[in-house]
Amino acid sequence: MREVAIIGIGQTPVGEQWEKSIREVAGEAVIAAMNDAGIDSADGLFAGNMLSGILAKQENLGTLIADWVGLRGVEAVKVEAACGSGAASVHMGVMAVASGYMDCAIAMGVEKMSETPMPETTAALATAADADFEGDQGISFIGLNALIMRRYMHEYRWQHADFGPFSINAHANARHNPHARLHEAITLKEYCEARMIADPINLLDSSPTGDGAAAVVLVPADKVHSLGRPVVRVAGSASATDSIAIHDRHDPLWLSAAYRSVQKAYSQAGVGPADIDVFELHDAFSIMAALSLEACGFAERGQGPRLGLEDEILPSGRIPIATFGGLKARGHPVGATGVYQIVEVVEQLRCQAGKNQIPGAKIGMAQNIGGSGSNIVTHILKTD
Amino acid sequence: MREVAIIGIGQTPVGEQWEKSIREVAGEAVIAAMNDAGIDSADGLFAGNMLSGILAKQENLGTLIADWVGLRGVEAVKVEAACGSGAASVHMGVMAVASGYMDCAIAMGVEKMSETPMPETTAALATAADADFEGDQGISFIGLNALIMRRYMHEYRWQHADFGPFSINAHANARHNPHARLHEAITLKEYCEARMIADPINLLDSSPTGDGAAAVVLVPADKVHSLGRPVVRVAGSASATDSIAIHDRHDPLWLSAAYRSVQKAYSQAGVGPADIDVFELHDAFSIMAALSLEACGFAERGQGPRLGLEDEILPSGRIPIATFGGLKARGHPVGATGVYQIVEVVEQLRCQAGKNQIPGAKIGMAQNIGGSGSNIVTHILKTD
Repeated sequence: MREVAIIGIGQTPVGEQWEKSIREVAGEAVIAAMNDAGIDSADGLFAGNMLSGILAKQENLGTLIADWVGLRGVEAVKVEAACGSGAASVHMGVMAVASGYMDCAIAMGVEKMSETPMPETTAALATAADADFEGDQGISFIGLNALIMRRYMHEYRWQHADFGPFSINAHANARHNPHARLHEAITLKEYCEARMIADPINLLDSSPTGDGAAAVVLVPADKVHSLGRPVVRVAGSASATDSIAIHDRHDPLWLSAAYRSVQKAYSQAGVGPADIDVFELHDAFSIMAALSLEACGFAERGQGPRLGLEDEILPSGRIPIATFGGLKARGHPVGATGVYQIVEVVEQLRCQAGKNQIPGAKIGMAQNIGGSGSNIVTHILKTD
Repeated sequence: MREVAIIGIGQTPVGEQWEKSIREVAGEAVIAAMNDAGIDSADGLFAGNMLSGILAKQENLGTLIADWVGLRGVEAVKVEAACGSGAASVHMGVMAVASGYMDCAIAMGVEKMSETPMPETTAALATAADADFEGDQGISFIGLNALIMRRYMHEYRWQHADFGPFSINAHANARHNPHARLHEAITLKEYCEARMIADPINLLDSSPTGDGAAAVVLVPADKVHSLGRPVVRVAGSASATDSIAIHDRHDPLWLSAAYRSVQKAYSQAGVGPADIDVFELHDAFSIMAALSLEACGFAERGQGPRLGLEDEILPSGRIPIATFGGLKARGHPVGATGVYQIVEVVEQLRCQAGKNQIPGAKIGMAQNIGGSGSNIVTHILKTD
C-alpha cells in the first residue's frame, strides 16, 4: 500500500453565499487547493456532498465540479455519507492514490444550504436518519440528538451548564479564523440562557449550517518533492458504521462507529490517544463532542464533559479541539465539514494556523460523523 | 497494485416491487452475492445509487444497506455518478481492494423508482444534467438524448428504422432472462410504429426504468481459493468525464468520456476491441448504443448502426451486446444498472448464462454511462 500525503488545501468562508451557485462555491475551494499544491491537473475528483440532489436539483455533482474547475475529462464521483460525506470523500481519495489507480486525487466537500427555506432544509437533513422508521415519525435530526443528550444527562448526572465549555472554547477559537461563520466569543451565562431549540439542546449547543467548500490534494508520499514546508502524511484513514436508527442500538450513548474507526486509524498510524496533539471532532451538537472524546479514548465513558470543565480541550490543554472554531463556530456546511476538519489539521501540522496555532503539533486527528453516529470517518495526519 | 477478482454476484428482477422498500430490494441482491461468494462478512460496502435522497427521502444509504444486510459496523458509503452510479461503485470497490485497505468489498447498486409519480421521476432524472443551464430550461433527460439522436441522423444520414436492430436484439435476448423487466420479442414493424416519446426517440428506443438491485463481491485475486468455477478477474476498471452540459461539447456526437475510459481500461487489461467477446453497453436509448460502439472502437464514427444492420451485435455476431436484454429490455433501475451489466458479464465468463450464453466468452466488457455521456465507467473482466 502506497503511503499518501496531502500537498494542497483550500477552503471558502462558511456563511451565506447568495451570489454563488454550488459549482462556484466548490470551485473556489478546489482551485485554492490546486494552487496551494502547485498543480494544474489531477487524475480524479471526489466530491463529498449530502444534499445537492434535494436542495439544488443537481446530482452528477462530481462531473459538474470537475468540469467547472477545468478538469473536464478526469474521473469524478460524488460520495455521500450524510454529514460524514466530506471525510468519506477524502477516504476514497486516499484509497485511490494508495491503490495506484491515481497519482493525484482531489478530495473535496461542498454544501450549499442558504438558498433553501429552513423547513425544507430540516426535512432534507432528516434523510440522514432511517427514513422509514425515524424520519417517517416526523422527528428532526436535532430531535434525535436531543434524545441522546437528555438520556446522557440522566445516566451520567450532568447539568446542561456542564456542556458549556465545548461551545465557549469553539467560539473563542473561531475569533481569528477568517473562514469561520461566527466570530464572537460567548460566556457561560450566554450559553446557559440561549433559547431552546430541542430540549435540552439550545441554540449555543448547535452548529450553524451554511454554504461552504473545502478541498485537499492527495499524492503518493514518496513523490512529494520539496514544497518548502512540512510534508503532511495520511497515517490513518478509517471508516465504520453503526445502526442507522438510534432505537436499534444496544447503547445509544456509545458511538461504536467512532470507536471502530478510531481504533483502525490508531492501528494504521501506530499511535494512541496520548500521541494526538490536536483533534478536530464533530461538535455538531455539544453532546457529540462529549461522545466523540469518549469513543476516542480521551475520557472515560460518561466523562466527556469533564475534559471541558477541566480546560483540557483548550488550545493550551491536553487535547485541544475545535481549534478553528469547530462545527459550532466555524460552521457546518454538512457535506463539506469533514474536509474542513482535515484542512484545519493540515494547517496546524504545517504551522500555518496563525493565532490558532497549537505549538509543536506533529500528529493531528479529524473525526467526521454522519447521521446520529451511524457513519464515522477518522483520519490521523502526521508530519515529521 | 493488487489484482482484484469478483467471487460473488447477485441481482433482483427488474420491475415494480411495490411490496419492498429500498433497503429490502438492495438487501436481496447483496445477500445473494454474499451467498454466491460463500461469505458472511466483508470489510466495506459501496452503494451505487442516484435518486434515493429525492425519491425515498433517504440519504446515508450505504449505512442503511450495510445495517440491513447484517454488516452493521463495516465501512459503507453511497456513490453517485447519475446513471453511472452502479459501475462507479464497483470502481470504488476495486480501488479499495487494490489498495489493501479492504480484503473484501461489496459493491452494489440499487434504485427504487416505481413508487414515485412519473413527472417527479422525470424531474429527478434531470438532476443528471446541468441544473443551472439545462435542467432550468425544462428539458427532460430523454429530450437531451433526442437532440443528440436527431443531430446524429442528420449528420450521418441514418433513418430511424436503422436503429431498430439494437432494440430488436435486446428484446430477443431478454426472453430467457428471469431478471429482465420485459420478455417479449419485437419486430421491426413494431419498432417503427411505436409511439413517439421525444422525437425521434420512440417507446422502443427507450429503456424502461424500475426497481432493482445488483451486487458483486470483490477480493484480491491471489486470495481466491477454489470455488469450483472459473475465477473472474477485473482486468480493467476506468472512469472518465466530459462536460456535464451537451452545449459545452465541441462535438456532441462523440462520447469522449467513453473513449477516455475505454482506452484506459484497454490499456490496463492489455487488450483491444478485437479481444472483447461480449459487451454490455449502456443502451438507455438506441442512440447511446451506437455512440458507445463507436467510442469503444467497434465501429467507425457515425457507423454504429451498421453493426446492428449487419447482425454483428447478435449473440452469434462479432461483438454481442445486451446479451441479457440490456437496459432496453432487462430494464434500467438507474443507480443499479452498472452493476447489473457487470453481473451479466460475470455470468457469461462463468458459462452460467444458460440460453443467453455466448460460447467461449473469456473477456467481457461493461460500460455504464452517467448523464448525457458526461460520466462513463468501463470495466473489462477476464477469465482463464
